[in-house]
Amino acid sequence: MGKVIIVLSISVDGFIAGDNVRLEEPMGEGGDMLHDWLGDTSDPRNHDVLTQGIGGLGAVITGRHNYEMSIKWWGADGPTGDARLPVFVVSHSSPKSVPESGVYTFVDGIEASLKQAQAAAGEKDVSIMGGANIAQQFINANLVDEIQLHVIPVLLGSGMRLFDHLTIERTLLEPVKVIDTRAATHLRYRLVK
Amino acid sequence: MGKVIIVLSISVDGFIAGDNVRLEEPMGEGGDMLHDWLGDTSDPRNHDVLTQGIGGLGAVITGRHNYEMSIKWWGADGPTGDARLPVFVVSHSSPKSVPESGVYTFVDGIEASLKQAQAAAGEKDVSIMGGANIAQQFINANLVDEIQLHVIPVLLGSGMRLFDHLTIERTLLEPVKVIDTRAATHLRYRLVK
Repeated sequence: MGKVIIVLSISVDGFIAGDNVRLEEPMGEGGDMLHDWLGDTSDPRNHDVLTQGIGGLGAVITGRHNYEMSIKWWGADGPTGDARLPVFVVSHSSPKSVPESGVYTFVDGIEASLKQAQAAAGEKDVSIMGGANIAQQFINANLVDEIQLHVIPVLLGSGMRLFDHLTIERTLLEPVKVIDTRAATHLRYRLVK
Repeated sequence: MGKVIIVLSISVDGFIAGDNVRLEEPMGEGGDMLHDWLGDTSDPRNHDVLTQGIGGLGAVITGRHNYEMSIKWWGADGPTGDARLPVFVVSHSSPKSVPESGVYTFVDGIEASLKQAQAAAGEKDVSIMGGANIAQQFINANLVDEIQLHVIPVLLGSGMRLFDHLTIERTLLEPVKVIDTRAATHLRYRLVK
């Protein structure tokens, strides 16, 4: 079975989106630049991080709110585009309409969604792509093997915190890899259990 | 005039101390390991970061609470030890007793303390060494040139956040340097003004 990895872009001050996340501005105020590195062509290592990241994945888990905010951009193929990895949306219910030939499955609860995602991923990894609330639930349930943070050089001042509402004891991490580019510092940690 | 630099050790989840900071445990619960890298001998780059950091400094600013929690360890020489850099403690009053031949000056307010620290530092840099509240005041007053974070591979879960109560607009940063060791990932950013 592959690893369970939280993968998120985050500001230096710890936010994965700005304030006031809404359909027209799914990254919240000022949060759009957190994803700029995805299109960065000045340093090929950013593209490498992205493609290697997707290459190791077999399935994606996301929250319902994140799905609703993102579906307009994701479309039927989901956040991994042409790779069309299956996306399991943690959700108490299914939406009335979903994209035709979409990659989405709606599952109630994090454990159930993880079970289905791991079955779909086989030997490959499962990525928790947010939002913050889902990532926190997975951390608190001790279900996460690695955390990969794309740290973006900006202070947002306020917004949606990744590391909030944690109920865990002190948890040691083991640095796996650091790749520093101007657009993002990519930090990858293994949780020591 | 030198730069004004916030220099702090911080957990991956954004805490510069654990919960319940007190005299017997000045780094709070579980927070002691945030400073372990200072004594790390397995990778000489940690010692280099420390000595080069102190080498560039001319004065230190800290908060009164941080002073009270630390004075037992700092003693007369202050946080920079043999370098004996002057320490300006932001404080409404002076304590009843201070160490003989100590490096400490008590100044009311961040602007006044910065003025005195910069006068003492000459061409060298001034370091804001915490606590969180003082660092936040300096960021909010737009008085900070650089932020140096020693990111420690641990999730504390809760504690004293560095980036909290910020009233700034979105502030771009420019990565200056990244040094990754197993004990700490040293990130240095310039604030773009």
